[in-house]
Amino acid sequence: MSRFAGLTPLLAPRSVAVLGASSDPTRIGGRPIAYMRAQNFPGALYPVNPNRAEIQGLKAYPSVADLPEPPDVAIVAVPAELVPAAIEDLGKRGVKAVVMFTAGFAEMDDAGAAAQDRLIAVARAHGMRILGPNCLGVFDARRSYYATFSSSFDSGWPVPGRIGIASQSGAYGTHLYTLARNRGIGASLCVMTGNEGDVTVGECIGWLAENPEVDVIAVYAEGIREAPGLVAALQAARAAKKPIVMQKVGHSELGGKAAKSHTASIAGDDAVTEAVMQEFGVFRARNSEEMLDIAHTATRKIYPVRNTLGVITVSGGAGVLISDVAEHLGLPMPEMPPDAQARLRELVPFCGPRNPVDATAQVSNDVTLVKTFMESMVRDGGYASVLGFFSMTASARRWPAIREQLNLVRAEYPDRLYVLSVIVPPEGRNELEADGWVVHEDPTRAVVAIDAMGRFGAAFAAPAPAAAPIVAQVTLPGTAPTEAEAKRLLAAAGITSAPEAACATAGKAVAAAERFGFPVVLKILSPDIVHKSEIGGVLLDVGDAGAVRAGFDLLLQRAKAAVPEARIEGVLVAKQLKGGVECILGINRDPVFGPMAMFGLGGIFVEVMKDVVFHRCPFGPDVAETMIRSIKGAPLLLGARGRPKADVKALAEMLSRLSAFAVAAGDRLQSIDLNPVFAMPEGEGVFAADAVIEVTGR
Amino acid sequence: MSRFAGLTPLLAPRSVAVLGASSDPTRIGGRPIAYMRAQNFPGALYPVNPNRAEIQGLKAYPSVADLPEPPDVAIVAVPAELVPAAIEDLGKRGVKAVVMFTAGFAEMDDAGAAAQDRLIAVARAHGMRILGPNCLGVFDARRSYYATFSSSFDSGWPVPGRIGIASQSGAYGTHLYTLARNRGIGASLCVMTGNEGDVTVGECIGWLAENPEVDVIAVYAEGIREAPGLVAALQAARAAKKPIVMQKVGHSELGGKAAKSHTASIAGDDAVTEAVMQEFGVFRARNSEEMLDIAHTATRKIYPVRNTLGVITVSGGAGVLISDVAEHLGLPMPEMPPDAQARLRELVPFCGPRNPVDATAQVSNDVTLVKTFMESMVRDGGYASVLGFFSMTASARRWPAIREQLNLVRAEYPDRLYVLSVIVPPEGRNELEADGWVVHEDPTRAVVAIDAMGRFGAAFAAPAPAAAPIVAQVTLPGTAPTEAEAKRLLAAAGITSAPEAACATAGKAVAAAERFGFPVVLKILSPDIVHKSEIGGVLLDVGDAGAVRAGFDLLLQRAKAAVPEARIEGVLVAKQLKGGVECILGINRDPVFGPMAMFGLGGIFVEVMKDVVFHRCPFGPDVAETMIRSIKGAPLLLGARGRPKADVKALAEMLSRLSAFAVAAGDRLQSIDLNPVFAMPEGEGVFAADAVIEVTGR
Repeated sequence: MSRFAGLTPLLAPRSVAVLGASSDPTRIGGRPIAYMRAQNFPGALYPVNPNRAEIQGLKAYPSVADLPEPPDVAIVAVPAELVPAAIEDLGKRGVKAVVMFTAGFAEMDDAGAAAQDRLIAVARAHGMRILGPNCLGVFDARRSYYATFSSSFDSGWPVPGRIGIASQSGAYGTHLYTLARNRGIGASLCVMTGNEGDVTVGECIGWLAENPEVDVIAVYAEGIREAPGLVAALQAARAAKKPIVMQKVGHSELGGKAAKSHTASIAGDDAVTEAVMQEFGVFRARNSEEMLDIAHTATRKIYPVRNTLGVITVSGGAGVLISDVAEHLGLPMPEMPPDAQARLRELVPFCGPRNPVDATAQVSNDVTLVKTFMESMVRDGGYASVLGFFSMTASARRWPAIREQLNLVRAEYPDRLYVLSVIVPPEGRNELEADGWVVHEDPTRAVVAIDAMGRFGAAFAAPAPAAAPIVAQVTLPGTAPTEAEAKRLLAAAGITSAPEAACATAGKAVAAAERFGFPVVLKILSPDIVHKSEIGGVLLDVGDAGAVRAGFDLLLQRAKAAVPEARIEGVLVAKQLKGGVECILGINRDPVFGPMAMFGLGGIFVEVMKDVVFHRCPFGPDVAETMIRSIKGAPLLLGARGRPKADVKALAEMLSRLSAFAVAAGDRLQSIDLNPVFAMPEGEGVFAADAVIEVTGR
Repeated sequence: MSRFAGLTPLLAPRSVAVLGASSDPTRIGGRPIAYMRAQNFPGALYPVNPNRAEIQGLKAYPSVADLPEPPDVAIVAVPAELVPAAIEDLGKRGVKAVVMFTAGFAEMDDAGAAAQDRLIAVARAHGMRILGPNCLGVFDARRSYYATFSSSFDSGWPVPGRIGIASQSGAYGTHLYTLARNRGIGASLCVMTGNEGDVTVGECIGWLAENPEVDVIAVYAEGIREAPGLVAALQAARAAKKPIVMQKVGHSELGGKAAKSHTASIAGDDAVTEAVMQEFGVFRARNSEEMLDIAHTATRKIYPVRNTLGVITVSGGAGVLISDVAEHLGLPMPEMPPDAQARLRELVPFCGPRNPVDATAQVSNDVTLVKTFMESMVRDGGYASVLGFFSMTASARRWPAIREQLNLVRAEYPDRLYVLSVIVPPEGRNELEADGWVVHEDPTRAVVAIDAMGRFGAAFAAPAPAAAPIVAQVTLPGTAPTEAEAKRLLAAAGITSAPEAACATAGKAVAAAERFGFPVVLKILSPDIVHKSEIGGVLLDVGDAGAVRAGFDLLLQRAKAAVPEARIEGVLVAKQLKGGVECILGINRDPVFGPMAMFGLGGIFVEVMKDVVFHRCPFGPDVAETMIRSIKGAPLLLGARGRPKADVKALAEMLSRLSAFAVAAGDRLQSIDLNPVFAMPEGEGVFAADAVIEVTGR
């Protein structure tokens, strides 16, 4: 059985009980019954109310014990003080799932949170799942299942369709579904998770991913509370090639609760979820219209792996606008092949045959020109996606003839993504959608939606990433290790630091320096001196043997003067790296997603420009290289403006090893900062110049 | 008379002739007559057609000469070969303006462009203005004036209103107006400029700015062809407090044609127009929906100077979303005052009194709570803008009562901006709009529109910028000046370089170095050696007198070896600047807008991050300082993470002086690059370390 099948009694039940059932179809306990009666829910519907024999024309039962069978799901719409007994009764009766409308729990205060925890514990003991509490419930129009008290159906029933909605917010989930309905977009199933005492939005995504009646998943989330469920759900959706469009708002609890190490504070709280969404090809929508645009376009199930856009029009004008948007998004709009252009120009001398392709007003005289032009685009241009910008033409008298010509091409080449930017009344829109077009009034939004399909295609087709490197078991010390200890731990995992040697005498220091090559860095070596530079305990640019000797003595003098009782073990001699690009590699433990790796360029780039990238640990060098190449400052590493190329392979290897190290180090690892790391020119490797590891106590 | 009044015969005529008038109301020459007849154009309407006595029920005239009076405007819908004679006839008759539908001119080929130039020349000789050629014309629904052949009216007439549209594209102008009409937004006047042989989109904006019937201007532009008209128009609109919302697409001809100096190539072609839009507080819309959202909201004419947002709801949920968007835009959402919060909490114990303010479902029991809560927000919270997120509640049975309560507060405090995010059918929407609310279904779009009103308010209230510095007349040499000449020219305008001295002997070099302080930079000084560093002619970090002497000799040796015939004038000694922040200041001549100043941080920031800002020249130090503070990397200058603050005042002074210098230097100045400029710590000034001036020949 799949991981998420346990939610089926909750999301697609055969029988429903309503505790706190009301005869008034406008009250919270009356609405689900009224809705399911109005829409002819095919399963059993059991009102439970000790005071009535009949409710809304149905036989009512005095208690859960009196029900003729244990229902798949029970809606709980009783006051908070009656909830504990109700949960106990339902659990004992073997009910599999509960939709709990009742509020007054974790959203209220600490006492409410404790009460919620007790309920969930009781339910779990009985193997019963709970949606909520304090939730607006769930409905599926195709099953006529309405375990919700949303008043949104006052203005119309949902449009059946293949989009599933999972929302943490009831108000926003309803808002979204209503917008969809008003646009004629089929979003029949909508689940709203409320307090998420038990069932999470991640699990609901997973169930939708496995549900053959759903092709596209739309998600509204404010904070992810549980990682394994969400990650499994995203994996299931990607494996099933089901696109997920997600609006993620708010300061995530993840980052929010995180101990604010240097690495965490750079990015802000949102970066972790963003990284997880990117990892699984989830499209992040900026607003509800973008969410619906993209979800709706995705229901065509055409996800080009290598997307290209061809635009056809009969009036010119929006070509510049469309090209601008496509360029901004990185969606290629290649020109038509020269021979095809020549053929079109023979037909219509003043046409625009490149791309956008403009068949001109000549189509008024010969409407078959539309077919000829579009056929050439699809066949000769080979575009994966075709956008027709016809705007007002779709209200003109000649439109039915144009539409017919366009449809001939669509039928001949059904594997392409066909989108129209037209202004038509709803009936006209529905006709075109029935033809197989996706209709977006606004050409900008059309291009964004087309581009999103290519992103889904690329994510679905991406090869499985390489395995993360295997690193030996890491045994963390009881407290934060010193720099040298940290470097030793990392070295065992193949993470190299600049060559360095602890030297007890000046002679040994000179020998080490000569081995490394000049210049070198000297640092005082003492377990009692943590902040070396504050006492002048670090010397840079030490250029020859004499200077090493002099520096050795100077550091010992300074140390004794500053911390007379310090145990002095000597001096650390390290090769001074020149000519490398300064980077920062880091790890920070997220309370939900565990260790997250960070990469950025050193100094200003991270601190001022926030030019960093994150990824869950562990991952292989291919993912690491993609991360490195994704930051804005990447040209600095890739040889911009005549600079030498940095050793990106070695950098990716180090980042990947660091991610494996972070997992091997276990839960006590809080953070790692390798800052700076010097990425040397190609073939010369990368070296951490400093390493800080933070741990929690044993 | 104002600058733009000359367009009145074109845009608001009392009489209209149609050349090429057709009896067929669906033909290009028939449509304007059909539209004006259908909508009862109150002025005189003269069809001109040599072959008919009557057209669409109107008396037709055989020629322009036969018209009973010279019409204000003549629509030209005749074939291209008949256009020259028509223009001649119209000019002779004293017609003031022409709307030229006819195509086949500059949009076609070079011969067409030449023909267009000839027409414009003839028209200008007669003092006649031409809209087009190859344009879709103009219409104003309130005047029943339809000098257009757009077929968009087949699906409905425009909604009268106070938005004026000026578009370079006919297809897109119509698209926009139709979207507006379908949303019930009043955009009655729409002018589409086509080829812009004569009348430009800038002039149309200016006329709309002066037109008392227009409050808001929506613009679609692909490339600005003429600067003075646009700049005067933007000034007029700002002075009249009329917001402009603009979609600017495409690679502007400006940048496109520009000689690609270093400075120009950094920014891409769009940066110049963007800078001009920013200068005048024009809002740049990303798509047509944003354009209409903002234009529509602006018709309320409430532009808060210091905008704050208060959000009221009865269901929670979208608060996080709204706060996210506001934070992203920088729109403050201050909390309610603590005492007001306490009062609200007394009324409804579990309300959300902070902001967003959630009156909770308690309003079902006592609807006056809505008024109490909202009144407290407006009075105690003092928010300039109020957003009510009611989503589906606006379709619920209790909505009329809620609406009544909300309106009571609106009436009491009419100076605030009131926006509702609700889902209602068009009739409900119209009622709310009539009440005085702005309705946006999507809360994200509502927040964007509210924020835009504050941006307009701030732009309208901004004090007049300080005058640009006065710099002496600049006499550019015949060819590009040497570095030293360039620095001398700039020094005369108060633009300081690092202290340096041309020294003919080693002794003088030592004296200069001791005057400046060590270390210094030595550069070979020869009119015959341009690329000094290529022959090893630059020495950095020269640390004492002995090194200066040795360096002097070394440079002379190297110069003689590399260029034996070179005239050697000695060595340039310059103070080597340390501890400053590297900046780039530049000038680039834009073919439309003239000299544009650029500011960015040195090296990577400009080259890789494209973190630069532009402004038209000249400007005072206040504008310069705003520019400097606007770049992403500004914290580097302002003392981020413990760095010393740079001398921003001196930097702004230099940038401002450079802008004045660029104007004083006249049209032959092509570009200036001051790269790097060292901004030293506060109080220590700024110094250009290199200066390159490019000029065109005399």
